[in-house]
Amino acid sequence: MRKGKTFIISGPSGVGKSTVLKALLERRKNVYFSVSATTREPRPGELDGIHYHFMDVDSFRKWISMEQFLEYAEYVGNFYGTPKRYVDEAMAQGRDVILDIEIQGAIQVTSKRPDTVRIFIAPPSWRELERRLTERGTDSQEKIQKRLLRAKVEFQTAHTYDYFVINDTVENAVRELDAIMTAEHCKPKDRMEIINGN
Amino acid sequence: MRKGKTFIISGPSGVGKSTVLKALLERRKNVYFSVSATTREPRPGELDGIHYHFMDVDSFRKWISMEQFLEYAEYVGNFYGTPKRYVDEAMAQGRDVILDIEIQGAIQVTSKRPDTVRIFIAPPSWRELERRLTERGTDSQEKIQKRLLRAKVEFQTAHTYDYFVINDTVENAVRELDAIMTAEHCKPKDRMEIINGN
Repeated sequence: MRKGKTFIISGPSGVGKSTVLKALLERRKNVYFSVSATTREPRPGELDGIHYHFMDVDSFRKWISMEQFLEYAEYVGNFYGTPKRYVDEAMAQGRDVILDIEIQGAIQVTSKRPDTVRIFIAPPSWRELERRLTERGTDSQEKIQKRLLRAKVEFQTAHTYDYFVINDTVENAVRELDAIMTAEHCKPKDRMEIINGN
Repeated sequence: MRKGKTFIISGPSGVGKSTVLKALLERRKNVYFSVSATTREPRPGELDGIHYHFMDVDSFRKWISMEQFLEYAEYVGNFYGTPKRYVDEAMAQGRDVILDIEIQGAIQVTSKRPDTVRIFIAPPSWRELERRLTERGTDSQEKIQKRLLRAKVEFQTAHTYDYFVINDTVENAVRELDAIMTAEHCKPKDRMEIINGN
C-alpha cells in the first residue's frame, strides 16, 4: 500500500491560505488535515477533536516531556502543538497529512522528520497582499503594515521551503498544490519497492 | 514570463513510453518534444526536422567539436544527438522541453545542465514488462530476455533519477507526468523573482 506523506503548508496572514486549503481538501478527499492541540479555552461553537484537541496545561506539559508533539509553541499565554499520534495514524493508513503551521513550527517538524514536504503559499505581489489585508477590513492600517513587514521577514526564511505556490487565483493555487502532492509520491525512494518487490 | 524547463524521460523498451508521451503532448500543448539529429539515412516517409534532423557525418562531427549537442552517441555505425539550439530556443520562449533519451544520454545532459529534471518510466512489475514485450510480438523469446536483463541493469542506475512514474495505466502515468511538470515550476528558485520583483 502507498504510504502517506506529510505536507506543511505555511503562508503569510492575508494570503488566502484557508480558502485554498478548503478547496484542496474538497479535491483530495483522503487527506488528514491535522488538528492542533491547545491549552486555551474552547470558544462558543468550537468542538473538541474538530477545531482543536483541548487539553489542560499539565497534560500539555506531560506530552511535551514525552515528545508527543511534532512541534509546539506558546502564544499569548497558551500552548499550541501538533500531536504526533494522529499524524502517524493517518500516514499508516496511507493518507497524506496536511499541517497548517508557521515557519517556526515547520523548522521543528522538519528537524525531526526531514521527509516532510514544505510548501509556502505566497501572494502574487506585496501590493496584492496589502490589498487583500485592507479589503478584509479586520485590521487597522498600522496592523496591516505590521503584518506586511512580518510577511517580508518570513519570506526571507521561506526560500528554504521545497515549493512556492503563488495564490493568484484559488484555482491555480489548488491545481499546483494538488500537482505537488501527486509528484512527491513519484520520488524514487517511495517507488523502489513497487518494482523491486515484483 | 515563466521560463521553460527541460525534462528527460527515460524508460525500458516495452514500457509503453511512446504511448504515454503522445498522450502527455496532447494534454500539454505548449511542450517542445526534442527532435534528434542523426547521420543515418532517412527511411521512407521520414521528414527532416520532424522525425529527425538529418545530417552528414562531417557536419555532425563539426557540431560535436563546437559543443552543439546536449548529448550524443554512436549506435550501429550512426551518430544520434540532441541539438542544443532547438532546446534553448523553446525554453527561451517559455516552453517546456521533453527529451526522450536513454540513461547514458541523461547522464551527459545533467552533467552539463544540473537543472534538468529526470523522470524514469517504470513498469508496474518485471512480469508485466515481460508480458508487454511478448504481446508486442516483434522480438524473439531470446531477445525479450535480453531486453529484460538490460532493463534490470538500467534500473540500478535509474534510482538516481528525480522521479519514477509507474506506467500501470496510460491515464495514471500521464496524470503523474503532468503533475511533476507543474510541481517543478513551483520550486523556489523559479519563483523568487515573481514576488521579490513586485
